[in-house]
Amino acid sequence: MLFRHSDEMLTEQIDHMRGGQGTVAVKHLLKPDEMLGKGRLFAQNTIPPGASIGLHRHQGDSEAYYVIAGSGVYHDDDQSFAIGVGDLARVDDQHLHSIENTGDVPLVFIALILFTGEPQ
Amino acid sequence: MLFRHSDEMLTEQIDHMRGGQGTVAVKHLLKPDEMLGKGRLFAQNTIPPGASIGLHRHQGDSEAYYVIAGSGVYHDDDQSFAIGVGDLARVDDQHLHSIENTGDVPLVFIALILFTGEPQ
Repeated sequence: MLFRHSDEMLTEQIDHMRGGQGTVAVKHLLKPDEMLGKGRLFAQNTIPPGASIGLHRHQGDSEAYYVIAGSGVYHDDDQSFAIGVGDLARVDDQHLHSIENTGDVPLVFIALILFTGEPQ
Repeated sequence: MLFRHSDEMLTEQIDHMRGGQGTVAVKHLLKPDEMLGKGRLFAQNTIPPGASIGLHRHQGDSEAYYVIAGSGVYHDDDQSFAIGVGDLARVDDQHLHSIENTGDVPLVFIALILFTGEPQ
């Protein structure tokens, strides 16, 4: 059994995340060793207006973003999408993605990274 | 690559979910066959005021709830916790949990079920 109040979770403040702009807050909902060997991240990410997570490639895993507040632009390889509350985007293994907050309020999303191969 | 607008996702309206009260909305963010064999649910659940998901046992998997709106009471085996925005609760394999909305606004949370054993 695990019960964790919001203020008991680690929130990292990451400058220029993956080469992006500004500072992104990554709140770790489950720790990597709590992912049962099935993935490596379950987090709530907050991107301030004007900030971004830079373009980066996934290798050995796949990441889903589910937006719970704000809006922005999501990129997957050479495609771009307007993304907002309630939308989901997922990058496949070996592909590139990035996300930027083009709105006036924080862009908040749940990030889930699952491994594509056998348990680790 | 997967990009899915909010209105493109399946939302189930489940009456008396797991023996609980009222009707719970389960919005499926990833389909079971999109979980890469690592789990069986990644969803946004909405419980109206006064409604609940009844006590049920997990077998072969573990489920995390992460609250994004509202408040309520969470039960894990014989323990109870007040749960609110930003809190996380996870039930272990072979254990029981339930959740009820004791507030005045919808209780909304992200649910993630990961398998505890080998990929399936």
